[in-house]
Formats: sequence, structure tokens, C-alpha cells
Amino acid sequence: MAPLAPVAEDRPVVLVDEQAHAWSPRTARSRFRQGLTGPTAGVAAGHTQANLIAVPADWAYDMLLFCTRNPQPCPVLDVTDAGSWTTALADGADLRTDLPRYRVWRDGELVEEPTDVRAHWRDDLVSFLIGCSFTFEWALSAAGVPIRHVEQGRNVPMFVTTRQCRPAGRLRGPMVVSMRPVPPAHLDAAIRETGLLPAVHGSPVHCGDPSALGIGDLGRPDFGDPVQAQPGDIPVFWACGVTPQAAVMASRPPFALTHAPGQMFLTDARDEQYRVV
Amino acid sequence: MAPLAPVAEDRPVVLVDEQAHAWSPRTARSRFRQGLTGPTAGVAAGHTQANLIAVPADWAYDMLLFCTRNPQPCPVLDVTDAGSWTTALADGADLRTDLPRYRVWRDGELVEEPTDVRAHWRDDLVSFLIGCSFTFEWALSAAGVPIRHVEQGRNVPMFVTTRQCRPAGRLRGPMVVSMRPVPPAHLDAAIRETGLLPAVHGSPVHCGDPSALGIGDLGRPDFGDPVQAQPGDIPVFWACGVTPQAAVMASRPPFALTHAPGQMFLTDARDEQYRVV
Repeated sequence: MAPLAPVAEDRPVVLVDEQAHAWSPRTARSRFRQGLTGPTAGVAAGHTQANLIAVPADWAYDMLLFCTRNPQPCPVLDVTDAGSWTTALADGADLRTDLPRYRVWRDGELVEEPTDVRAHWRDDLVSFLIGCSFTFEWALSAAGVPIRHVEQGRNVPMFVTTRQCRPAGRLRGPMVVSMRPVPPAHLDAAIRETGLLPAVHGSPVHCGDPSALGIGDLGRPDFGDPVQAQPGDIPVFWACGVTPQAAVMASRPPFALTHAPGQMFLTDARDEQYRVV
Repeated sequence: MAPLAPVAEDRPVVLVDEQAHAWSPRTARSRFRQGLTGPTAGVAAGHTQANLIAVPADWAYDMLLFCTRNPQPCPVLDVTDAGSWTTALADGADLRTDLPRYRVWRDGELVEEPTDVRAHWRDDLVSFLIGCSFTFEWALSAAGVPIRHVEQGRNVPMFVTTRQCRPAGRLRGPMVVSMRPVPPAHLDAAIRETGLLPAVHGSPVHCGDPSALGIGDLGRPDFGDPVQAQPGDIPVFWACGVTPQAAVMASRPPFALTHAPGQMFLTDARDEQYRVV
């Protein structure tokens, strides 16, 4: 499988606005609708961000089954009715305009990265909103776990692994993971805190040797930015909501729309709603 | 909506065999395949039991979406490919024969309760295995929470509520709950321990006043047996995997197969696998 095409996320991460962390989700969606773009880490802090993947209704069962069979990379937060661009997770939102940047896929190829997909919309599109690891970073921070990519003002590094997802109908593909270097003294807290958030990827899929996941070079992520580890840090890998995009590349449905990596949909839900206890 | 038809579960609960708690899941499935019937509470202790609902492929997307939109009553543990009677959760199992008793539904009406559904099987049937509250009872016991219906040798009482599930396509229906009386001193542990098991209904949907769920008389459950509370016990309600059967009754798909309430499918999975931390 060819490396996933990095486009928008290759540029330096710049917080869209110094005040963006204090925006309401509605304000964030409105700004993005007006054309603002950029990674959403830290925007509308405390509110849940989601990965988007929309496929034709003919592919919706396969996609929903793929998510059900692979709940760690693909935890489903909402599924729309065919053709609808609204979601129960965000009052007044328009999924066609309210993300900073989208990706348009034809036959598994990335063909465009627009900031608005009204021109690409179809009446048979079913949209899936998938949990995002940005949601568990507040829990890591609250537990005192340092988050290196945030300290360094970068997007989280993401890697395509050699671990295959469980197929579903015509959909198959590798698991994508995000990686955070964690000091050994904080490893237990990192595992436990994210485990309490199963709807946003849950506990790590692997800690330690990257080669166990077929990752050759931590300095060259397939998505996002490289991150500088501190001496002694252990690389910790969580399942990532970019996995459905890898399935699109591997399985080649005729059409799909997704978010651009790191440029997520802002819901009205609060992160703590997804904590099980 | 008419009361759900209680048939098999109205008879007294008798443990199928004094040794049944020590059976392996494979042995349990084999005994049920040979014709043994009865409630499965306590059988193959420590192994995960599951609710079954099988619908024609034409209804599978609606059912999977219904489960996704209502994860507390309908947590999906596995979905088969159309026509297949095997599951990744149980090596060598046959979903057509290995449950103690089934229910056959036509146009939303319960028409038969056989112990084998090979004669009813269809090549387009998609089977859903749904988490069961029997799985969290070990966690309650381990935390010292008394389980009244087990103490009294009865099936857990289940009630149809006035709380409606979020509809999905042609499927709609009320949430069904199971009820356990819990002493106030154990309430916190009961909520916390079950919260750690979101794949098997998670934390309670309600504690206290039954009328908040539209339940008039705790002594007259819609499924299962009445249970005797001790003075001071608080009724605690958990979402129940019989909910898809209520959706079948309300939505009337042309055909469905389910387990009989309390007579579950024994998987090879271990209960603790579903604990998030």
C-alpha cells in the first residue's frame, strides 16, 4: 500500500486564533464555515472533536460494520440518515461546511482538499462521526501526563501499521495509530485514563517497540508532525480515527468525503460525557 | 404496545445442572445443542453470555444502526456475515442449535419457541450478538454488592419502559431494563463497577422511582421473575439486551429469530475482557 498522501497537515501547525480555545463549538463551526482553516487541537477546549467519513448509502452498511468490528480505531459517535448534513451532536451544524478542511476521495484516490463540500454533496451520503484522540488529551493532562506534541506546538504524529483491521463486506485496511511519548512514571496513568474513555479509542493498542506495529521510523509519520521524545520516554500507540481513510485507500469505494487529518468537526458534546466512570 | 409475551421464562428457574457453573462454554453449547434447555444464569461462570437477534439482510443496516444509536441497551459484541451461523466469539459454535431456547418472530408476533432453529434458518439472516447483564453480575459480586435475584434463585426481573430508543430506519421501540434492588451502601460500587463494563450495558440508566421509567408495579415484570427487595434497598435499573425484541414487536420486520429471555448464547470470551480498565 502506498503511503497515505500528506497534504494539508504538512504545513506547520498554527493555532487558528489565540482565543480559539475559549470559543464555543458553535463559534468554531461558524468561523470554519466562513473559511477559516487549520488544525483544531485546542479549539473550543473541553468539547468533543470528531473524525468525519461520509460514503454513499450503498456502502454505509459495510462502513458501519467495519466500525463495529473495529471499535478501537473506529468508535462511532453518530451516524446521519442518508443525505442529511445535520447531526444530533451539534445543534445547527452543517457537516458540508463546518469543518476547516475536507478530503474528497474517488475510487480510493485523494482528489481534492476543499474547505467546503457543498458542491460534492450527494443525496445518498451517510456521514459517520468517529471519536478522536484529542478528546482524551484533556484526561491525560488532568492526570499530569505530559503531552509532548502539545508542548512542542505540533500536530500528533500518526502512522499506518501492519496490523490489519477485521474486514467488513468490501472494506478492509490497516489500523492507523497516533503516537505519544510517555515518561515511564506516567505510563500507568496514561493507560488507565484513556481506558476510561472507550468511545474515543480507549487504552493504547501498543507500548514500546514501534517495529511490533511495522513502524520503521518514528521521525517520519504518515500523517501529522514528528515529535521530539525526552530521554526515557516510551512510545505509546493509540488506535486512530484516520483508520477509515486508510480503509478508503485500500478498498476504493467510488466516492467518499472525510475531514483532513487534524482538522476535525467540533461537536457540542463535552469530553467528560464519554468517560465511563 | 401490548405487553411482551412471557412464555418460557415464566416457569421456575432451575439451574440446568449443579455442575453447570463449572462447564466450559464449549460443553455448555454442546449440551444445549443436544436439547438441554433452561436459563443460563451461572452457567460456565466467568464466560460472557450474549443476547441473539437475527434479521434478514434487508433489515441488517437498520438493526446495526439501531444498536449504534442505542449502545446502552444494544451493545454489539459481534455481527455475522449474512447466512453464517458461526461467530468469532465462540470456536466451533452453531448459532442455529447452541442456545437453550429461541424465539421465532413473524411480522412482530412471537410464533414459536423452539430449541433449534435450523428449520427456520435463511441464507440472508444476519445475526447480532448483544452484551448481557449476566456479564456484569460477577463484577457486582466481586465488589460485595448483594444480587437479590441470585440469592433467591430467580431470573432477573425485566421491564418495558416508556423511554423510547432513538429510531433507526424502520426500527423503533421502547427501552427494556433489568432491575436489581441494591442497598444504599452499595449503590456507589454498583454504579462504578458496571460503568467499567460499557460493552455489557454500562452504568445504570436510572436509580430509584420506577414511575420515572413508566413502571407501575415492580412485582409484575414483563420478563423474568419478581424479586424480593430487602428493607431500604433502592431499585436500580440497567438497560437490557431484550430491547431489540421490543423493537421487533414495535416495528414488525417480516422475520426475526432471537434467544428466549434469560436463555443466552455462551461465548468463549471471558467477562473481564470487557472491563475497560
